[in-house]
Amino acid sequence: MITVLRLGHRRFRDMRITTHVALTARAFGAKKVILSGEKDDKILESVADVAKRWGGGLEITYDKNWKRVIKDFKGTKVHLTMFAPSMTEKIKEIKAKKDSLLLIVGGEKVPGEVFQMADYNIAIGNQPHSEVAATAIFLHEYTNGAEFKTTFKDAKIKVDPLERGRKTVEN
Amino acid sequence: MITVLRLGHRRFRDMRITTHVALTARAFGAKKVILSGEKDDKILESVADVAKRWGGGLEITYDKNWKRVIKDFKGTKVHLTMFAPSMTEKIKEIKAKKDSLLLIVGGEKVPGEVFQMADYNIAIGNQPHSEVAATAIFLHEYTNGAEFKTTFKDAKIKVDPLERGRKTVEN
Repeated sequence: MITVLRLGHRRFRDMRITTHVALTARAFGAKKVILSGEKDDKILESVADVAKRWGGGLEITYDKNWKRVIKDFKGTKVHLTMFAPSMTEKIKEIKAKKDSLLLIVGGEKVPGEVFQMADYNIAIGNQPHSEVAATAIFLHEYTNGAEFKTTFKDAKIKVDPLERGRKTVEN
Repeated sequence: MITVLRLGHRRFRDMRITTHVALTARAFGAKKVILSGEKDDKILESVADVAKRWGGGLEITYDKNWKRVIKDFKGTKVHLTMFAPSMTEKIKEIKAKKDSLLLIVGGEKVPGEVFQMADYNIAIGNQPHSEVAATAIFLHEYTNGAEFKTTFKDAKIKVDPLERGRKTVEN
């Protein structure tokens, strides 16, 4: 069971990045997304709407108190940050725990406490890039490529893959 | 040599997503990024500034004429789209070409011609998620994890990875 906690959301500036983090979490195997920072009902609604139409029952909620979310979580807490040692050094150890996972995804200014509260601080390389990319790569490795295998039984809409062009099928 | 072409940029709405696509391209091994859609000098400047400080000499330019960019490109043209067959079916074939790569990354409304002009249309799963995530996963597989290995010799700033906390070193 994978939960993604998105820290420090800012309503206007981060709208699309946070939406992409949440959709990436869902497509790459997370069952729950918790947003923190500024409350933003539009994102909660739009992601819940995607989850309803495309299936899979993602739970998405808002919690102002991210400290309590991290503190109370039972399982392994992994914080993605460009300042940490590389994922390649730790991923085997993290996977071997076969535990529930809380993946903590920062925004631009992550409080120092997060680095202390996490069980692991993990970098997807030490270059500046994107929390969306970091979430994707971590979950890709952690789930052995769930994004290529997952299908959602209750989907109202799905893609019929074509070599050229677009096709969706509605149930 | 990897070039990323970002289609259909919209100046305000896509500012941060396009920036993340460009930074992800750089961190995951691309040497050139071409933006199309609306011209946006702020993004060109901010990404060029990151590349200057963090090293690596990424070339980032704007070209309104994306059709010509695709048509004139010498090498393999891969278009990322959720509507195509999965990357896992084609990645070996694409890598075996050992060719220059043009990675075409769409926005919300990709013209149908793109599906025809690409050598490969490739999906990172068939669920809606993010062009940033798709760029990361494709380049991760294509480069065998360049994001974990690449260092830039001319970097003015770099991360000194810590288990807990943040540290950068300036040259």
